[in-house]
Amino acid sequence: LQIKKFRREHKLFLVEGAKSVLELLNSSYHIDSLFITAAFNDLYSKILVNKVPFEIVSQKDLERLGEFVSNDSALAIVRMGENTELLLEGNEYILALDGISDPGNLGTIIRIADWYGITKIICSENTAEVYNSKVISASMGSFTRVRLYYCNLNEYLKKRKAPIYGAELQGKDIHSVKFTSSGFIVLGSEAAGVSAEIQSLITEKITIPRYGAAESLNVAVAAAIICDNLKMII
Amino acid sequence: LQIKKFRREHKLFLVEGAKSVLELLNSSYHIDSLFITAAFNDLYSKILVNKVPFEIVSQKDLERLGEFVSNDSALAIVRMGENTELLLEGNEYILALDGISDPGNLGTIIRIADWYGITKIICSENTAEVYNSKVISASMGSFTRVRLYYCNLNEYLKKRKAPIYGAELQGKDIHSVKFTSSGFIVLGSEAAGVSAEIQSLITEKITIPRYGAAESLNVAVAAAIICDNLKMII
Repeated sequence: LQIKKFRREHKLFLVEGAKSVLELLNSSYHIDSLFITAAFNDLYSKILVNKVPFEIVSQKDLERLGEFVSNDSALAIVRMGENTELLLEGNEYILALDGISDPGNLGTIIRIADWYGITKIICSENTAEVYNSKVISASMGSFTRVRLYYCNLNEYLKKRKAPIYGAELQGKDIHSVKFTSSGFIVLGSEAAGVSAEIQSLITEKITIPRYGAAESLNVAVAAAIICDNLKMII
Repeated sequence: LQIKKFRREHKLFLVEGAKSVLELLNSSYHIDSLFITAAFNDLYSKILVNKVPFEIVSQKDLERLGEFVSNDSALAIVRMGENTELLLEGNEYILALDGISDPGNLGTIIRIADWYGITKIICSENTAEVYNSKVISASMGSFTRVRLYYCNLNEYLKKRKAPIYGAELQGKDIHSVKFTSSGFIVLGSEAAGVSAEIQSLITEKITIPRYGAAESLNVAVAAAIICDNLKMII
């Protein structure tokens, strides 16, 4: 059963490991199939009851079905959500990802958004796919609470009236920025940063001050620092 | 040539890729052997001249020698530094890592320390090895500026008089902590957090406030947020 190959075609994706599957069971995602070990069933039988039909399999079966090297708990095959447009509503911030290509970074950003109460992320079309199993795994279950919308990011941001914050070398020190009560935070790709066309849409240039010598910060790390500074004010 | 196998025995480690090798050439590390492509030589001949002898090889050779899937620039075999005790001197912060086992996390933490001007990291013996090629790669050259000392972290911290900060669930909101001018920041392992014996040595319990629903933050992300809050004050 080579699931990866048929993932897009059948609009299904994989969720692996105890933590992620437990969060999934608490979400509105439609679970197509659920495979668990007897040990997982012993631990979580109360949670599993009446939720969704499942099949008890061996650890070896889970590892053969999925992409985890080691999985002694659970694996779900899940229906993908629709790619629905997400808009700024009330006092909230939305992250806008411009070509984040590393699945681990995207998953970590989803987890950070979830920590800081950000529930919407807009992704350029060249951003990693949320249903990639490395994204799902790195998000540590947060993919169930944060929605992603893939679109032409340039066209999307052009139409917005709220402030668009973006990290640049010559921006205002993030520690003294007075963030408005809602807006967008643009994060650029690992290799190329924010693309020129999207840079021109940034209304508030911000900078994370550097005290040492590293040339840059990892994009997920930068996202976390921006979110942390944001939330100190609003 | 299976370098990995002989790394510890010969006290040598690998540095791969243009960015890391260029930072290495600017450091005090002793380069045992340097292999570069003709293209890398064309780009950086001025930097390479009189620095260290090198050999021009093919991209295929670099990939065979190293652990990068793709490497079209350079690879160096480098002498490991000594494991020298590091002490708090003057107004500075030192990171103390209690069992950070993921090489990517350790490399990212080294890069964050370098960004925030922290030059010393104390590691428990069960922390990932700095000379692991995944650590070197994730540090993006910052391993040349940040020193690490591996020891019994519990014994090390017991002897210190400076404040020891550590993130815990019931700590003081990091946004309102008044950090002293020097001290230690303890970061616990991905799976188990800070070990019980080291928890008892923490003098200042701090918490990164959560506004959403994620259960936790990645340890490198937490390190970055703590460093960012630290540097706003000192």
